[in-house]
Amino acid sequence: MDFELTEDQRAFAEAASQFAKEQLAPMAAEWDEKQIFPTQVLQQAGEMGFLSLYTPQERGGLGLGRLDASIVFEQLAMGCTSTTAFMTIHNMVTWMIASFATEDVKQQYCPKLTCGEWLGSYCLTEPNAGSDAASLTTTAVKQGDKYLLNGSKTFISGAGDTQVLVVMARTQDDGAKGISAFVVPADTQGISYGRKEPKLGWNSQPTRSITFENVEIPANHLLGVEGQGFTFAMKGLDGGRINIATCSVGTAQQALNQATQYVQERKQFGQPLAQFQALQFKLADMATELVAARQLVRLAASKLDKQSPDATAYCAMAKRFATDVGFAVCDQALQLYGGYGYIKEYPLERYFRDVRVHQILEGTNEIMRLIIARRLLAEGSELL
Amino acid sequence: MDFELTEDQRAFAEAASQFAKEQLAPMAAEWDEKQIFPTQVLQQAGEMGFLSLYTPQERGGLGLGRLDASIVFEQLAMGCTSTTAFMTIHNMVTWMIASFATEDVKQQYCPKLTCGEWLGSYCLTEPNAGSDAASLTTTAVKQGDKYLLNGSKTFISGAGDTQVLVVMARTQDDGAKGISAFVVPADTQGISYGRKEPKLGWNSQPTRSITFENVEIPANHLLGVEGQGFTFAMKGLDGGRINIATCSVGTAQQALNQATQYVQERKQFGQPLAQFQALQFKLADMATELVAARQLVRLAASKLDKQSPDATAYCAMAKRFATDVGFAVCDQALQLYGGYGYIKEYPLERYFRDVRVHQILEGTNEIMRLIIARRLLAEGSELL
Amino acid sequence: MDFELTEDQRAFAEAASQFAKEQLAPMAAEWDEKQIFPTQVLQQAGEMGFLSLYTPQERGGLGLGRLDASIVFEQLAMGCTSTTAFMTIHNMVTWMIASFATEDVKQQYCPKLTCGEWLGSYCLTEPNAGSDAASLTTTAVKQGDKYLLNGSKTFISGAGDTQVLVVMARTQDDGAKGISAFVVPADTQGISYGRKEPKLGWNSQPTRSITFENVEIPANHLLGVEGQGFTFAMKGLDGGRINIATCSVGTAQQALNQATQYVQERKQFGQPLAQFQALQFKLADMATELVAARQLVRLAASKLDKQSPDATAYCAMAKRFATDVGFAVCDQALQLYGGYGYIKEYPLERYFRDVRVHQILEGTNEIMRLIIARRLLAEGSELL
Amino acid sequence: MDFELTEDQRAFAEAASQFAKEQLAPMAAEWDEKQIFPTQVLQQAGEMGFLSLYTPQERGGLGLGRLDASIVFEQLAMGCTSTTAFMTIHNMVTWMIASFATEDVKQQYCPKLTCGEWLGSYCLTEPNAGSDAASLTTTAVKQGDKYLLNGSKTFISGAGDTQVLVVMARTQDDGAKGISAFVVPADTQGISYGRKEPKLGWNSQPTRSITFENVEIPANHLLGVEGQGFTFAMKGLDGGRINIATCSVGTAQQALNQATQYVQERKQFGQPLAQFQALQFKLADMATELVAARQLVRLAASKLDKQSPDATAYCAMAKRFATDVGFAVCDQALQLYGGYGYIKEYPLERYFRDVRVHQILEGTNEIMRLIIARRLLAEGSELL
Repeated sequence: MDFELTEDQRAFAEAASQFAKEQLAPMAAEWDEKQIFPTQVLQQAGEMGFLSLYTPQERGGLGLGRLDASIVFEQLAMGCTSTTAFMTIHNMVTWMIASFATEDVKQQYCPKLTCGEWLGSYCLTEPNAGSDAASLTTTAVKQGDKYLLNGSKTFISGAGDTQVLVVMARTQDDGAKGISAFVVPADTQGISYGRKEPKLGWNSQPTRSITFENVEIPANHLLGVEGQGFTFAMKGLDGGRINIATCSVGTAQQALNQATQYVQERKQFGQPLAQFQALQFKLADMATELVAARQLVRLAASKLDKQSPDATAYCAMAKRFATDVGFAVCDQALQLYGGYGYIKEYPLERYFRDVRVHQILEGTNEIMRLIIARRLLAEGSELL
Repeated sequence: MDFELTEDQRAFAEAASQFAKEQLAPMAAEWDEKQIFPTQVLQQAGEMGFLSLYTPQERGGLGLGRLDASIVFEQLAMGCTSTTAFMTIHNMVTWMIASFATEDVKQQYCPKLTCGEWLGSYCLTEPNAGSDAASLTTTAVKQGDKYLLNGSKTFISGAGDTQVLVVMARTQDDGAKGISAFVVPADTQGISYGRKEPKLGWNSQPTRSITFENVEIPANHLLGVEGQGFTFAMKGLDGGRINIATCSVGTAQQALNQATQYVQERKQFGQPLAQFQALQFKLADMATELVAARQLVRLAASKLDKQSPDATAYCAMAKRFATDVGFAVCDQALQLYGGYGYIKEYPLERYFRDVRVHQILEGTNEIMRLIIARRLLAEGSELL
Repeated sequence: MDFELTEDQRAFAEAASQFAKEQLAPMAAEWDEKQIFPTQVLQQAGEMGFLSLYTPQERGGLGLGRLDASIVFEQLAMGCTSTTAFMTIHNMVTWMIASFATEDVKQQYCPKLTCGEWLGSYCLTEPNAGSDAASLTTTAVKQGDKYLLNGSKTFISGAGDTQVLVVMARTQDDGAKGISAFVVPADTQGISYGRKEPKLGWNSQPTRSITFENVEIPANHLLGVEGQGFTFAMKGLDGGRINIATCSVGTAQQALNQATQYVQERKQFGQPLAQFQALQFKLADMATELVAARQLVRLAASKLDKQSPDATAYCAMAKRFATDVGFAVCDQALQLYGGYGYIKEYPLERYFRDVRVHQILEGTNEIMRLIIARRLLAEGSELL
Repeated sequence: MDFELTEDQRAFAEAASQFAKEQLAPMAAEWDEKQIFPTQVLQQAGEMGFLSLYTPQERGGLGLGRLDASIVFEQLAMGCTSTTAFMTIHNMVTWMIASFATEDVKQQYCPKLTCGEWLGSYCLTEPNAGSDAASLTTTAVKQGDKYLLNGSKTFISGAGDTQVLVVMARTQDDGAKGISAFVVPADTQGISYGRKEPKLGWNSQPTRSITFENVEIPANHLLGVEGQGFTFAMKGLDGGRINIATCSVGTAQQALNQATQYVQERKQFGQPLAQFQALQFKLADMATELVAARQLVRLAASKLDKQSPDATAYCAMAKRFATDVGFAVCDQALQLYGGYGYIKEYPLERYFRDVRVHQILEGTNEIMRLIIARRLLAEGSELL
């Protein structure tokens, strides 16, 4: 048992930190305000390897583990929550294709995805299948050497501005077992995109719904075999939960850093805010919860790396805890800024808006509790 | 002891509810998005008496108490939090002038303010005097029959779009006792307004800073006598805290109403969300906290009406509790909507943004705790 | 709407406060330690009318309302939580008999119960029917002019030391509708009592299980008519929830009073604890939550007095909120005492133990949430 | 970075778990009820090495690190919180003597302490020096080859039933720097013990005050040199905080295990409690917080092992978080048991009582927040 970062991990973290400070942080407010999807900066991130952190090296990725990736994403999220969150989605798409696609598709897509020339969207959620992914109704019907895709997806990050979609669709009536996963070029005929959804935050990544009308997909664009889609999705979600939890931790750390500095500068009643004991206590609690959240995320990532049988429950715990703590820390940091926390001249309100969705995405925190409870009741809490 | 609304209170509430549904709710999203200050609707509110609820009848107001006003504002806030919050500020300005101005000024200003032809801003906060109002540095120097005003104010609601300012300024070095209050026409020479401040919420009311450079004010525009300004401000704050607390209660009630309906319509895993026990528990807790908050606000308003010596502490309790509960309820309602809570198509994210500032304004909730503790320690908790 | 106590209410509160200070508080620690059921002091309480506060005057009670009773019980609970809680149970038993018994039974029992010569126990809970009262299995079979009672009850306050039992038993298979209520002399043949249950708190009232083996009850000892038992029980519970919530409020007020005094006496780091801002904030929050809880309890009691259709939901809200707040306040008061809070020389640890059961009794706080949610979902939250 | 226990750690944990199940758990209720200090079982623990886990091997200890010790204590605490907590104190005393005493004293005391033939008490707290240890007033005046000890200590675990005291006393006026540490045979003339303090919990270890009246101590019983006492105390506290936090984690794990099992057995409304979603959510949150707490404790222990400069802050975080979570989990487990949680037939109420003191001891959780904040403000939160 060892809690220290390895030298490699420190080096990756350092590189990510520098990228965050130089490429992300200075632009984040503008991307948010003007709803800019920073594709060029994403390509720069690709050059650094940040778009394919846990994609195998033989497919152009860095071949890191989930724990390593979490260490990197945390630093990136300190620069821009929303952009980093998109990177994590792209990482998942790239990893999924690099892991489960046919050789042809791997060869065609991976080079473009790892460098960020192409960006990827992950298409699971439907208007009536949010938390209940197994009930999705988009269909993929095989016709000769093609599949015909029909249905619609909603809340798709990047949609309309990405080149590659990974789409979960039903190849059979059979609940979760009838779902298959496909790689779909985003400009295929029959795909139409909804309007760019105005949102509370996550504004540097566009969100749109997608409609598929008789969209033809080459049969070799199936991932794995028919019926494996839900399994892939669930695997993806474990990692996705670590990632989104990580984005909360990084953002909260950034908020805490700024609040810690602010209270030492801002004076009221003749002394810096930092002199007020009640505010000291608040800072202490923010720091404590944040450190606990980070450790839980890293523990879960490590379980995922080791394919521990309880990894899914731990990922759910990490996601639930870290996204709740992350939001609370950002909320309290905003409060410490007083009126200045509420205006857009300072980044606190953006952190607050951006991390809020993490409690909803990748399975709401309510779904997390179901997953955790199911494991506890089946296996017993003594196995924790 | 009687917890029932009187017939009059019911009638006022009903009128306010209708106004909220017809004039506020349908426009609130647009006002928010486009940052529109709805001066016409405010005039309509003036015709209903909503701009001078507790201004004396002989000055054109409705002459209601603070409890009555709270009942009205709660209903209005269900239609638009931000616009109602501005109305409460305007009510305070109007009441202050109608109560403490010279007869001439009363005659000149009250008719215009009660009907909403003129709107009022309240200028207390300064860049370095937020929670610590007694340290303000704007000066008013008497020169013959005029005062010369110099200094700056920040976070002023309505500033730049209102006609009347009530300004707290220092007429003597002497901490709180050296502060005086003035009525200032908003277009007086020497007044300049900062840019419209981009904010997290409260977008239907503009917020600007104000700079006073040798602004000449007729001496009869002093409220009361020199040195009374801080006392007026503190009286204003007691009422202001009830008002802002009320806006949180109304908004949270609206959020709860919509969430309660939503969970009965939205299905996941084959049944309405309302069937999930954990979500039922969440609704139950939201309702319980909200009812408790409403009662506490009404109790404090009643204490204010009766000029109870512990009114200030009760107003602080009401403000702290109701704005915390109000935010928590809006936050949880957003969560119940899942992804739909995060997008602007639904009003949940607006409620969430709008009520957030109530925990900061009119004295942060940290300042509320100081006020409450001071009373407890001085008078003993057995007097609660 | 009026939040002031009436003169009568003040007088009752004053009398109760004096009784609490003189008769209860000085003995409470000893009753707790030695597990003494203070029957003599209960008789004195009876003389004051505290054992029949809302029993009709024509049956020897004070004929007060539930709100009045709450005001009295709150003061008593400041003296001894556990003993006051028993008084509230006895009040319920007495009220039930005075309201629903046959004339003969009323004449026989009420005089003895109102003065405390006889004490009453309320027998609803069974080993396998706790929260789910409608599933109880104790049977009462009619045989001529008698009922034959068989079954067992558990967690019965006062059992073994009281003279009168009100027993819920099944006269028919039919869920809640098959339940009837009986008055049973506690020494009737066939009744046996379990051992005195060692408990965390509530030690001044004995708790035992009861077994009924062919216990003969005169037919005229039925309350109301057959099948009404569950209705009586539910009515009793509404009031019982107000009462238990009240006991939490009173105890918490006592804990807060003592903590407020203690922090002004106890010094650390060269100054009284009261000078530490973080502790001031804690006191402020304790006071705020407590005041909110008291108001909610009184609102619910008032709803019960007016037989408002939403009274049950409000009683559930009051019970949930006030017992949670009551425990939290006692817990925090203990913490403010530091090590002295943990030892029996000071009463804090007793308050902490005594109020803990209020979150469980009279329907757990989980059951309260179900009741509240059911109402919200059926009637809509806009009716709050 | 590696989150897996080593093989050695697993083996130690397994041995401790077996000891807890066989020697502690079966007796814990009786020790609590009858306030028995289980000296024989403590000797058995000594034979296992549990009384000198991190005492150097050359002094008869196991020579383990703090992280290792935490893994062991967690398992022991699952059997008996109070007894394990005493063992941790004894471990601290033994380690302090083995590390800082003169060779003679080491040789005399260590063999007896490591095996548990002698038990040790740690005497820091005074009636007026609780959280503010540096203000202690017990004096040690050097006279020839002796020190003369005068003063009093309070809340001393084991006092009156132990053979060895480590006493902090003032050898100079000079705040923290004037404090020295002494090894004192518990039966030295002039030492008198107060009455056994009745407490809320921790009943298997006696707590007494101690008075020193002209107690003569051989000069070689000084630990280190004069003036080092406070430094030793602070070092001891870092470890003590890890230990007490660990006792909370172990107890909470035990409470969660039992609650998880109980909800699967106990039926209400025709189904096991485990089927109720709201209770599942509660279990999930208990487990999540507990896992986070355990990780934070282990992280802090690891920092201590590595003598990291931020170890003190991390120990404070671990203590604050784990003892709060530990109490909350025990409290919620009690609630899940309903009425059965409140009676002494089940262990839940004991866990609840025992862990409550952990939020107070070894520096209250309020002091922890001060320590954390001090570091944050001095070093910056970015170093977390």
